[in-house]
Amino acid sequence: MTSDKQQHEILFQPSGRRIIVDRDVNLLIAAQRCGVDLVAACNGVGICGACKIRVINGPVSPLSGAEKNLLSQSELDDGYRLACCTVPSGDVLIEIPKSSLPFGQRLQIDGQEAPLEPEPIVFPVDVKLEGPGLTDLRSDLTRVNQFLKTKGIEEIHGNLHTLGALSISCRKNNWETRLVLRKNETGTQLIASLPPKTPLIGLAADLGSTKLALYLVNIEDGTTLASMGVMNPQIVYGEDIVSRIAYANEGEANRRQLQVRLVETINESISELCITAGVDKGQIVDAVFVGNTAIHHFFTGLPVRQLGETPYVPALSDPVDYEAYEIGLEIAPGALVHMPAIIAGYVGADHTAALLSTRIMNNRHIRVLVDIGTNTEISLVTNKKVFTCSTASGPAFEGAHIRDGMRAAPGAIEKVVIKEGQPIFTTIDNEAPIGICGTGILSAIAELIRTGVINKMGQLDTENPRVSKFNGKNAYLLAKSDETGHGREILITRNDINEIQLAKGAIRTGIEVLLETAAINAEDVNDWVIAGAFGTFLDISSAMRISMFPTLPIERFHQVGNAAGMGAKQLLTSHHQRDIAQNLTKDIKYIELTVYPEFTKLFLQSLYF
Amino acid sequence: MTSDKQQHEILFQPSGRRIIVDRDVNLLIAAQRCGVDLVAACNGVGICGACKIRVINGPVSPLSGAEKNLLSQSELDDGYRLACCTVPSGDVLIEIPKSSLPFGQRLQIDGQEAPLEPEPIVFPVDVKLEGPGLTDLRSDLTRVNQFLKTKGIEEIHGNLHTLGALSISCRKNNWETRLVLRKNETGTQLIASLPPKTPLIGLAADLGSTKLALYLVNIEDGTTLASMGVMNPQIVYGEDIVSRIAYANEGEANRRQLQVRLVETINESISELCITAGVDKGQIVDAVFVGNTAIHHFFTGLPVRQLGETPYVPALSDPVDYEAYEIGLEIAPGALVHMPAIIAGYVGADHTAALLSTRIMNNRHIRVLVDIGTNTEISLVTNKKVFTCSTASGPAFEGAHIRDGMRAAPGAIEKVVIKEGQPIFTTIDNEAPIGICGTGILSAIAELIRTGVINKMGQLDTENPRVSKFNGKNAYLLAKSDETGHGREILITRNDINEIQLAKGAIRTGIEVLLETAAINAEDVNDWVIAGAFGTFLDISSAMRISMFPTLPIERFHQVGNAAGMGAKQLLTSHHQRDIAQNLTKDIKYIELTVYPEFTKLFLQSLYF
Repeated sequence: MTSDKQQHEILFQPSGRRIIVDRDVNLLIAAQRCGVDLVAACNGVGICGACKIRVINGPVSPLSGAEKNLLSQSELDDGYRLACCTVPSGDVLIEIPKSSLPFGQRLQIDGQEAPLEPEPIVFPVDVKLEGPGLTDLRSDLTRVNQFLKTKGIEEIHGNLHTLGALSISCRKNNWETRLVLRKNETGTQLIASLPPKTPLIGLAADLGSTKLALYLVNIEDGTTLASMGVMNPQIVYGEDIVSRIAYANEGEANRRQLQVRLVETINESISELCITAGVDKGQIVDAVFVGNTAIHHFFTGLPVRQLGETPYVPALSDPVDYEAYEIGLEIAPGALVHMPAIIAGYVGADHTAALLSTRIMNNRHIRVLVDIGTNTEISLVTNKKVFTCSTASGPAFEGAHIRDGMRAAPGAIEKVVIKEGQPIFTTIDNEAPIGICGTGILSAIAELIRTGVINKMGQLDTENPRVSKFNGKNAYLLAKSDETGHGREILITRNDINEIQLAKGAIRTGIEVLLETAAINAEDVNDWVIAGAFGTFLDISSAMRISMFPTLPIERFHQVGNAAGMGAKQLLTSHHQRDIAQNLTKDIKYIELTVYPEFTKLFLQSLYF
Repeated sequence: MTSDKQQHEILFQPSGRRIIVDRDVNLLIAAQRCGVDLVAACNGVGICGACKIRVINGPVSPLSGAEKNLLSQSELDDGYRLACCTVPSGDVLIEIPKSSLPFGQRLQIDGQEAPLEPEPIVFPVDVKLEGPGLTDLRSDLTRVNQFLKTKGIEEIHGNLHTLGALSISCRKNNWETRLVLRKNETGTQLIASLPPKTPLIGLAADLGSTKLALYLVNIEDGTTLASMGVMNPQIVYGEDIVSRIAYANEGEANRRQLQVRLVETINESISELCITAGVDKGQIVDAVFVGNTAIHHFFTGLPVRQLGETPYVPALSDPVDYEAYEIGLEIAPGALVHMPAIIAGYVGADHTAALLSTRIMNNRHIRVLVDIGTNTEISLVTNKKVFTCSTASGPAFEGAHIRDGMRAAPGAIEKVVIKEGQPIFTTIDNEAPIGICGTGILSAIAELIRTGVINKMGQLDTENPRVSKFNGKNAYLLAKSDETGHGREILITRNDINEIQLAKGAIRTGIEVLLETAAINAEDVNDWVIAGAFGTFLDISSAMRISMFPTLPIERFHQVGNAAGMGAKQLLTSHHQRDIAQNLTKDIKYIELTVYPEFTKLFLQSLYF
């Protein structure tokens, strides 16, 4: 079966993509090269076990030690391999199972919106001119500026793209055109020249490590015309930020690739949103992008190396306005992309936007904002100060690093109740279970704690009939092989419990450090605002039971969904909010957890259930 | 010989370039596609006869009527064809004769320089910082800005490129870096971050229709480090501006191609200049580009269609400062490219620069500036006003449209004296004559007028033993076939004389219209400043003899060389000169010749010798 050819053809199903690669290229690299999105949480070093694939046909390298450890016997029997450990030795046909694809999962992008009077930063001016003649040889720009002067508007300036487009639009529309302008320190800037009466559209976006949320908004009346959530395509280069920075550090081409893939995906999404809303890309005359610091730097092409090295400082932290074409965004080329201030290396402009949209700093009641994601940012607002920290909660809540973990896609167990010793679960879309998502594992562990199957240390009760050894370690049998969609059992292993302990422990430590710094008791915090996609579906009781949050009356918790995305929308429609956001970050005291004296002690305490 | 293949391979010699083209593609298009620069004065419509090539081998389409008219019998015998009229019908080997290649000719780029105190618009600030630590998490930009504040410099802002480069330079140079800054209306702009003590370099350029002149200057002390002249690569798409605009109008890809070719050639020249001067491209932190209006628009990507249609108005006429990376120039990506004001559709920023460098408006003596090129711009300065016009003198002075015309390359006849009825000529580099360049034809015609062989109407004396019929029209035998380098005779035909009449008539008409408008006699003009490459080599006596200029004492004429290039250098080293240039254009009254009431009458008069 093995071929002597120097190159092999790889066919990936179900996408049907093909690629020809040199004989020493593994399947993960091949998938990345041909744009097949495959989860690679550890960036291909063979430790996360996320990049499971099935070899349907064709010769491949022998099983590695890593695969023997990370794959179950039934998976091995079914031809499952890890893409990062598997090198074809001839033409092969590969199936990517649903659980390894970062697609199709529930992408929560909505959030609570506060009503806001639209005050867009750009404004339209309709001009109707006499064209040039042999006795009127003024340049197009001079002609427009002299018209604007008669309307009391100061002269406009623009860039190469907008000034060229002005000439073209004037001639195309018979010297009647809608100018989109923006006042700035140097005068009035030309953003776009549109046909008469064109409505002005804006784009708001929240760029998460895992997910991109995009919103198309009519900035004149504030209505959202279309919105969508898509996977961050960078995920194929590493599920967490640290892996992506490591990938970028391998060379300028890699860093650039991460930028290009991100911008490409955003451009594709813009096209889809425009079709949905029935508008033209050129009508998008303003944009606001928020995101964590690393994604902010990736998106704008800033260096990221220093974000991967202590003390993790950003290249810049002030709010920025970049021209869309500089970044490669396919909207009106003169549109400016506003990105609000960054708070710290791991507290990005997305948290600024979340603080804004939740109005959490509007009056100084004692409140906490927890924005849960791969990194969780936490702010504690007191009547004196605002303290903020960031904590690496990791991708466990997204189902990564969990034996049967998966994203919140159809077939994922999302809720577990244990009745008379038997687990009863519900799955997303009621499909036969194929894995367990973040909310599901939280729910399962909370129930196992409640019923005493797991103790405070996270140890499983070996007396329980559903607990037995798998690969030498204790595990709880959540679903038997005949109950699942793929015919393999679904387990909660000691290792899974440990991952959740680390994740929730990180969040709890952040909360405790902030409380201690501000000298406030958890009981004195009246509002707990829980934001983020995972935070939307989170069962608060389960979260309290596993001690992610302090045990408090449940009505003190408010789940607000994608607060960062809502903040981006508010920044888009109101320039007043941009000023508020800028002032707001000035009041924040950032607490670096790793240098906090009591950190280790608090973290060890927080691991307990 | 003829092949039935759908595609043919064409090999161009002496460059050795090959291309495979579809069977209906003519040799001019094929040459353009594979980057073989071939003069195409009429943009390939078969009327200029400039794109002469020789078919060495292989089958081609039959001779066209145009070729029978435009090529001599001896040329036809030698296998000469016009590339635009010749379609291969199989694989062919083509020779491009020296006279059809826009290379190797004398490129005059020097000019008279007035001494000037350097006052560059950018300035260096050397910073030495403490790097970040766990208790100092300021972003790189914040760190730099807070340092600058201690030095009394306000905070800097930048674009994506400069801000990213700042972080990288700080880390690479151990937090010691030389910032290059520029004050503008919004504060202080970051141009570049260089290693400590790096000298600051600037680039000045004059973009002509035919020729690009580039100068690398140390902007701190004003010295010119290197300079060079290269052909404008757009020449292969049409020798004159009108042909290039027509080519651009065929589609956006064509317009873009003209821009890209130009920027590519400039970037290659920058690399060469940097090697010569021993500096790095990233040190070029400021640039000034001048050029005629069309080249200005091509270079900056502005639309050009309106420049090819009456009333020929520019898209913009104000001075502009564009970021180098926007244009694609490979210098410091934050460097700004300054382009001074445009006066009119056919009086560009190059004339603004020429007016500046000649100081012609400094005191209001009555003076004339004639900047001779494919378009000739003329300014008349009086004690009250400045009048400027543009006149299409055409490429005849460059040797185009002339039967044996060629550019000022080795082997071109450049001076003719008639002694005892016999022409005595000198050639460039003393090579055997292969054609006649612009100064040569002027010299020859002036001598033929002096000796009565040509009368005031331009008619040849058929009694002269060297005058006889060629292709049914009178021509003067300048060099016999046994005297030339290519074995064919060199003639001055009635048609050549006519072309020169049109060219010099256009210039003279422009002068006369300005004098008439200002109500001034030619005798009252004390200074005649003659600029431009052709103007450098021009024999003023010959020019007066053919009535290009009024007959006046020769000491009133001053040949200043590339005044536009010198102006670009002055604008580069002195921001004060930029203000002067901007004010200077405000005083100019542009005279559109085509609507001048007496234009036709004056033009007909100006045709006489």
